[in-house]
Amino acid sequence: MTDFTATRRAFHLPPGITYLDGNSLGPMPRHAADRAAAMMRDEWAEMLITGWNRAGWYVQPRRVGDRIARLIGAGEGQVVMGDTLSVKVFQAVSAALRLRPGRRVILSDSGNFPSDLYVAQGLADAVGAELRVVAPEDVAANIDSDLAVLMLTEVDYRTGRRHDMAALTAAAHDAGALAVWDLAHSAGAVDVDLLGADADFAVGCTYKYLNGGPGAPAFIWAHPRHADAAQPCLQGWMGHAAPFAFDQSYAPAPGIERMRVGTPPVIALTALDAALDVWDGVALPDLRARSIELSEAFIHGVEAACPGVTLHSPRDPARRGSQVGFRHPHAHAVMQALIAEGVIGDFRAPDVLRFGFAPLYNDLDDVARAVDRLAAILRDGRWDRPEFHQRADVT
Amino acid sequence: MTDFTATRRAFHLPPGITYLDGNSLGPMPRHAADRAAAMMRDEWAEMLITGWNRAGWYVQPRRVGDRIARLIGAGEGQVVMGDTLSVKVFQAVSAALRLRPGRRVILSDSGNFPSDLYVAQGLADAVGAELRVVAPEDVAANIDSDLAVLMLTEVDYRTGRRHDMAALTAAAHDAGALAVWDLAHSAGAVDVDLLGADADFAVGCTYKYLNGGPGAPAFIWAHPRHADAAQPCLQGWMGHAAPFAFDQSYAPAPGIERMRVGTPPVIALTALDAALDVWDGVALPDLRARSIELSEAFIHGVEAACPGVTLHSPRDPARRGSQVGFRHPHAHAVMQALIAEGVIGDFRAPDVLRFGFAPLYNDLDDVARAVDRLAAILRDGRWDRPEFHQRADVT
Repeated sequence: MTDFTATRRAFHLPPGITYLDGNSLGPMPRHAADRAAAMMRDEWAEMLITGWNRAGWYVQPRRVGDRIARLIGAGEGQVVMGDTLSVKVFQAVSAALRLRPGRRVILSDSGNFPSDLYVAQGLADAVGAELRVVAPEDVAANIDSDLAVLMLTEVDYRTGRRHDMAALTAAAHDAGALAVWDLAHSAGAVDVDLLGADADFAVGCTYKYLNGGPGAPAFIWAHPRHADAAQPCLQGWMGHAAPFAFDQSYAPAPGIERMRVGTPPVIALTALDAALDVWDGVALPDLRARSIELSEAFIHGVEAACPGVTLHSPRDPARRGSQVGFRHPHAHAVMQALIAEGVIGDFRAPDVLRFGFAPLYNDLDDVARAVDRLAAILRDGRWDRPEFHQRADVT
Repeated sequence: MTDFTATRRAFHLPPGITYLDGNSLGPMPRHAADRAAAMMRDEWAEMLITGWNRAGWYVQPRRVGDRIARLIGAGEGQVVMGDTLSVKVFQAVSAALRLRPGRRVILSDSGNFPSDLYVAQGLADAVGAELRVVAPEDVAANIDSDLAVLMLTEVDYRTGRRHDMAALTAAAHDAGALAVWDLAHSAGAVDVDLLGADADFAVGCTYKYLNGGPGAPAFIWAHPRHADAAQPCLQGWMGHAAPFAFDQSYAPAPGIERMRVGTPPVIALTALDAALDVWDGVALPDLRARSIELSEAFIHGVEAACPGVTLHSPRDPARRGSQVGFRHPHAHAVMQALIAEGVIGDFRAPDVLRFGFAPLYNDLDDVARAVDRLAAILRDGRWDRPEFHQRADVT
């Protein structure tokens, strides 16, 4: 049985703050800063260039990837770290397109995170493919024999709606297409099972539920049936079969290593590696159960106590990730007022209050406090003060 | 007058080590570890998601870019940080290609770092362009009216040969093409003057002479005449004109910000930002003079004292960057023996001993010690011991 009291203690959670925005940026594991500083002092400063071998920096992207593999239903040696999620989306979709020559359609949905659409559109414009974007509920009906790549984010960033990865992947395969899954809001939040769902490629970020820190490196996975065949159009030094032979022509490394591009971000990977320690005793079924317990309690609490909000997430927990959205016509001001009360969720345009429940450190006290503060703000209308109507660049 | 004694003191240089490999990985500025750890504790841990605004993480890529702009002859607001050098090469070359519709040739040289060629080849294969690679001395003669993009690394990673950026850029422009410059071995090493040379795009890494740490973020610059027109085929969230409007379609931000892709690597950028403090009092003409002083002293010392090596770099310092290569038939074993003596340079296949001179922390004592140890190793043949013939993955 996973000890969520112990995992909560592993994080620095500022006193007086109820943090329900770990789906945007996870909090800092207590030992992460010391670990990063120690790496810098003991490895970078002392070993200098020899750290690439002696401290294992060179193999760090796959070693850390192996720690994430367990959390997404992937096998050892199948995940590699590096770059940002956008770059990894670009690589995965470009590789999948090439594996379906003669087909040019990339299908996605309007619930996808917009930047995935930007990446796919940029790629499509460059290589002469076509990006089709439909409503999330229309995805299945739009899978046809034109399709090259189905590109979806499993959990919707606003609503928390969770796609049926296995069913949609099977539908893509039946149509002769490949499925690329973005796990940004899934990894560390729900019981992802890539091999079980028979997915083709997957990518994700590590600064949300995996708590790697702001801008932490991304990951990419390819099913073993593709790993030796995939050829992303963004190919770099560290993905070469023999990077230190300095050949002038590119020869991809075997397996997922070919998805590496440039020099790995060692300091950032060290902070992430520290954050992954917290996952060592965590079982995915426990994670999922805890996530549902927290989200259900929040939905029931809000609906019982808070006037004027409407659930923006699926009511069935089996169709939700680990976040809950509520709509309110003045959602931005309401969230500002809530933050002023020490409850941090976030706002997503145009009218969504978004709350993430991270099983590793959120508990039922957090849920109760968030419900209580939200109810108070909505009842007494304090969200309508001028200071809560100001907009910042980033919210 | 730049105080190079003070800049040297700013670095942690392990006792007993003469470090001539800052052209591969710069040493750690003494305050970098504390700065990174403080950012993690005071900003990430305490501010959580609000750090994006309150701690300025969101604008960090351009704020840090402004600090680098001065070192490469660029203006304020023209440089932005993020990703790795390979990703930035991909963006710059793809954007330049689009600015020359109807032309499909990318010209580079065999002295370029191989990964730049991998990136260009991957891009060319994807978009139907053609990569031509000629010898460095044949570049000028191969600039013709087919050319879309001239893609060169200013300073050769093996020989230190420095291209004439202004002359080759002018030749590219005369042919109706654009010039993309990789400053990996230039930034922080020589007196780069992008605006003076009228270059079109430039990219570089920051873990060499800029001392940002292993895998530190890259930078990209576009001449102001292109900055509002450039459209790289890799486009992401942070390069959007309004990232937090969450529009489904991409609209590039004005200026160089459009070259941002995903979430910025805040921890790594903080370490780099600390490293850039050391540059505050450094004047580029002094940097160049100091670099030439050190490299010349090394060449003269080696040629006077070391049998069996041949200079692999241009003899004219005006045609060199800040590194010196010597060839030796057993260069790998010689370098291993030299490292065992505490003098760290590196080996580049097939037979090059490479020594970087970083004006910020190398001095004439380093030069004297390196010459002395190399001479001893070559005279008594100790490089031929079995342990020096072993190969590591990364050298």
